Amino acid sequence: MKEVTLIHGAGGELMHELIVNVLARFKNTKTPGGMGLEALDDGAIISLDNTSLVLTTDSHVVKPIFFPGGDIGRLAVSGTINDLAVMGAKPLALSSAMVMVDGFFIEDLRKIVNSMDETMCEVGGAIVTGDTKVVEKGAFDGIMINTTGIGIAEKPIMDSGLRPGNKIITTGTIGDHGFAILAHREGFNFETDLISDVSPIWSTIQAGLQVGGITAMKDPTRGGVANALNEMAKKSGVRIVIEEGTIPINPAVRAASEMLGIDPLEMANEGKAIIGVEETSAEDVLAAIRKTRYGKDAAIIGEVQKGKRVIMRTEIGGTRFVETPMGDPVPRVC
Amino acid sequence: MKEVTLIHGAGGELMHELIVNVLARFKNTKTPGGMGLEALDDGAIISLDNTSLVLTTDSHVVKPIFFPGGDIGRLAVSGTINDLAVMGAKPLALSSAMVMVDGFFIEDLRKIVNSMDETMCEVGGAIVTGDTKVVEKGAFDGIMINTTGIGIAEKPIMDSGLRPGNKIITTGTIGDHGFAILAHREGFNFETDLISDVSPIWSTIQAGLQVGGITAMKDPTRGGVANALNEMAKKSGVRIVIEEGTIPINPAVRAASEMLGIDPLEMANEGKAIIGVEETSAEDVLAAIRKTRYGKDAAIIGEVQKGKRVIMRTEIGGTRFVETPMGDPVPRVC
Repeated sequence: MKEVTLIHGAGGELMHELIVNVLARFKNTKTPGGMGLEALDDGAIISLDNTSLVLTTDSHVVKPIFFPGGDIGRLAVSGTINDLAVMGAKPLALSSAMVMVDGFFIEDLRKIVNSMDETMCEVGGAIVTGDTKVVEKGAFDGIMINTTGIGIAEKPIMDSGLRPGNKIITTGTIGDHGFAILAHREGFNFETDLISDVSPIWSTIQAGLQVGGITAMKDPTRGGVANALNEMAKKSGVRIVIEEGTIPINPAVRAASEMLGIDPLEMANEGKAIIGVEETSAEDVLAAIRKTRYGKDAAIIGEVQKGKRVIMRTEIGGTRFVETPMGDPVPRVC
Repeated sequence: MKEVTLIHGAGGELMHELIVNVLARFKNTKTPGGMGLEALDDGAIISLDNTSLVLTTDSHVVKPIFFPGGDIGRLAVSGTINDLAVMGAKPLALSSAMVMVDGFFIEDLRKIVNSMDETMCEVGGAIVTGDTKVVEKGAFDGIMINTTGIGIAEKPIMDSGLRPGNKIITTGTIGDHGFAILAHREGFNFETDLISDVSPIWSTIQAGLQVGGITAMKDPTRGGVANALNEMAKKSGVRIVIEEGTIPINPAVRAASEMLGIDPLEMANEGKAIIGVEETSAEDVLAAIRKTRYGKDAAIIGEVQKGKRVIMRTEIGGTRFVETPMGDPVPRVC
């Protein structure tokens, strides 16, 4: 394949190959004692004296930039906060780099910056440095924002830590963000509104960490829960079995999914985490998460076994594999 | 003004206003004990235990992506290394986030990644995490790269530290990058080739830091040396007087400058630093810098006095103000 395509950017198999074969081919991919690009986790761990710093970066190219439930500003800050959170890191500081097209409305910029501020204020920490570039008309179709975050992790959590016997928890309903973007962009009208779940979930994760027993975490963005579970299973060297009937799905998402023939498991989430927990702690972690603002619909959806792959026990009593998607069905979903 | 324009992205007065009035309006712009967005320096300082972490971010939208002397990959890594260096920080780790258009050649991607790797290897440190997004044809005209860097500063250096009596040093010739991009993009043919100076100058800066006596530093990218000197003077509350005859300029740049009527002081540099030094250390710092790979043409070009503004004593014996440019004459120069 000679050219990069949209599928390469869609968070699935093909993107993974591009990263491994081309994008991550640096001689030095980690700092001494740290963990970096070679692990392809949600962020990197940098060891400094007695502290584990986590570093994570994301470029946000979502289209449209204003959507039900949020905007590119809230998405940018939440995305980075959540990548830090699922590494077990309390957010400390973010950078914010914007690239805009000549002609971008300053009033829209104010709204976006305000959104970023409000989202950051939910969590604490600060936006400490930035960059601004403008490109000529025709070069880009709006605004893109890169946020890079630093957090401090008492005990960093990798996405490769699942062990047989662990339970799998989702912090809430799945597929909300992807369907909201798709419906809004395509102008679909559904009876119930599809609203993005975009939110910074550090306090939800923190509540779980404080109970203890969390073995692995991942935020299911591009490629959805299907991608997240498969990555966790592969890296941990385990099988994951999930129960279809236990997966929390908003009625609006369920309806859209049936109408459009798209699996909510493959749709992006921007305010959720998939968490692996030791069996003995699972109910306590679940209870703690459910007390938090963004964790009210949390549920145990499966367990970890010896073996490979991700399997779902369906509501009609069968089983099917949950595959790693080639990519997210929705371009520019985040 | 209702819309963002190219001048807002050009590193001068108008961009400064946009940042102050819109882009930097967050409630929390620094971490406890640190220095952040409110200072508008090349990076932010984060205090951690006994360590000063420096965080800096840059998006690179240079066009064309391959140019005489380098490419967007070398530019991205050098730019971030140099922003850390002029804050006095030894580079530790970088993140690399790419946004590409559907159809981008994978072979070009390999060249760019290779370039980034070579540039990073000159300095040490690691590229530890990244992100990949692809946008649809027509949405963007190539590739943009955000690099965000963390460094450790024994003693952070701000751009506001100049004091009357200090000398001003440039680590080498000025205007090379801006003229190289302009000439290559417009297809100008000059007798001598214009080549970008893009390079990671940590070892040059480090040599100066080891001597001691450095009071302020800045890397003169968009808006050139004119912008850098004015920012340093304004933030430090001093006057800077430079001697035109002492400013090192490549003959090719001088020729292009005369032919095009563009002042080299306003053209971007991507492998240079402007350094303020205590008078008693100036010659030693200069000597140390001149021994380094990228500091051979270093020169003392002026001094700091009480007062305001930046003044140049011209070669014909007059004086003129060196103003903050409205912006860099070359869009997408970095």
